[in-house]
Amino acid sequence: MRSDANTPSETREGVAVIGLGLMGQALAGAFLNAGHPTTVWNRTADKADALVDRGAVRAGTVAEAVAAAEVVVVCLSTYEVALELLEPLTGTLAGRTLVNLTSGSPEQARQTADWAAGHGIPYLDGAVMSIPIGVGQPEAVLLYSGPRALFDAHRATLAALGGGTTHLGEDFGLASLYDVALLGLMWSTMSGYVHAVALLGAEGVDARTFTPVGNRWLSTITGYLTEYAKQVDAGAYPADATLDIQVTTMEHVLHASRERGVNVELPTLIKTLAERAIAAGHGGSSFASLVEVMRKPA
Amino acid sequence: MRSDANTPSETREGVAVIGLGLMGQALAGAFLNAGHPTTVWNRTADKADALVDRGAVRAGTVAEAVAAAEVVVVCLSTYEVALELLEPLTGTLAGRTLVNLTSGSPEQARQTADWAAGHGIPYLDGAVMSIPIGVGQPEAVLLYSGPRALFDAHRATLAALGGGTTHLGEDFGLASLYDVALLGLMWSTMSGYVHAVALLGAEGVDARTFTPVGNRWLSTITGYLTEYAKQVDAGAYPADATLDIQVTTMEHVLHASRERGVNVELPTLIKTLAERAIAAGHGGSSFASLVEVMRKPA
Repeated sequence: MRSDANTPSETREGVAVIGLGLMGQALAGAFLNAGHPTTVWNRTADKADALVDRGAVRAGTVAEAVAAAEVVVVCLSTYEVALELLEPLTGTLAGRTLVNLTSGSPEQARQTADWAAGHGIPYLDGAVMSIPIGVGQPEAVLLYSGPRALFDAHRATLAALGGGTTHLGEDFGLASLYDVALLGLMWSTMSGYVHAVALLGAEGVDARTFTPVGNRWLSTITGYLTEYAKQVDAGAYPADATLDIQVTTMEHVLHASRERGVNVELPTLIKTLAERAIAAGHGGSSFASLVEVMRKPA
Repeated sequence: MRSDANTPSETREGVAVIGLGLMGQALAGAFLNAGHPTTVWNRTADKADALVDRGAVRAGTVAEAVAAAEVVVVCLSTYEVALELLEPLTGTLAGRTLVNLTSGSPEQARQTADWAAGHGIPYLDGAVMSIPIGVGQPEAVLLYSGPRALFDAHRATLAALGGGTTHLGEDFGLASLYDVALLGLMWSTMSGYVHAVALLGAEGVDARTFTPVGNRWLSTITGYLTEYAKQVDAGAYPADATLDIQVTTMEHVLHASRERGVNVELPTLIKTLAERAIAAGHGGSSFASLVEVMRKPA
């Protein structure tokens, strides 16, 4: 959005934001900040009050919101709710671009794309990989899937929502698939983090003292993951730090946790998964070989 | 080590590296790269061959290695092995600085510090948060605990081992405690990563395609952790994305995984931990409230 700070606002696309939960409000706020004419609608109308104070137009109906905009952004609780609201408006939508940022499964995204195609509605499916407060910031990652040309046509508008505005591919399910994969990665990382903080806290180390070191370490880990990606794609996992060695070190984590009364369920599960990889012949492989364990139901 | 590139090598401290596993070899190699006179010893002498070719001096005995250096760096398989080798050399060590980079528990670090103090040996305990190939690079993190003045006196030498050379505090157990905490964080993150890669791989997305997005996302997550650190220290976890909402979204991860035959043990455990936090009254709290679950044995 920074790049079109010099574009006169009358040349910016009109947008509608349907659904004003915390995320919808953040999306509409980011469009307003970037100078887009912004129309908003929510079932409970007063959710729009603060946005209207900032210059948004309150639509009385979904139909009115859709009719007012070139790009219709939907952010609702479920795909079912979204389709129920949009089904009566297919005629109006056909002349606009529908961008669905509702959370759901890849299957739901593909079904919705089929529905949109059946009605001639240009459609992008997306996922907001940010908490509401981060929307519109350079760090915010928003993922889109669907026709590349459609994404490119509205890239400048979508970029108002975050610096990490990314097109993943034509397959409409990709944004949702990445969404669940990235959320899983987030929760695993955060679970490891709260475990680490509990361990250090048992010895009186503040979370604020530990966290800069932990964050620097996560940055180091991204370098390992870049290497692991090549290994996963090659199906071969050469290692300096073999799983055999790492499982021994995992015992230190378990021991140090138990000594301090800290929960060991997470490191215990990870050790079990690593041992399963070793049993499958990966004792001399890197941690990346656990992808083969992950490809099988338990 | 970059900062003393202009220091004549004769003013650089002489170092000894005891133990030439992959990590010990990397440590000695980094000292050589930084121009330190470097003496090396390993029980199996031929592990030193490549280092000797690069300018290291091969010591015939541990005593010879210790006698040759101002800073004695030890990197062995266990603390027991380290103490067994060093016990006969306490007299020689008393005039030098002993830096123990062997992996172990905080308790072992503190016991070894007591032993060193009893013999008048200046002692630092440390942990190498890097794979061997990363040692000596700007990104490599090495953590030290023990007397601040001793660390400062040898900081320029230790900095040869990595750009992230950090003193954690006077408590000798801190480096080992951070070590296990950071390793736990690493394995949790990597487990989440291989799960994500398995999920995307089921739809034909390469690990190399996904990983740059995943790594960018991890960088976003470090911002959340900085916020969570304040919450943990305050014991209050205000949230936009409450655990009640997140547990619902966790169901999407489980569903998408099951649909693709991908292992769900990790996301299932995380959901269980989150539900435990909710049962304890944290439904309206952020994910950081899971620290309270982690503070209790299962």
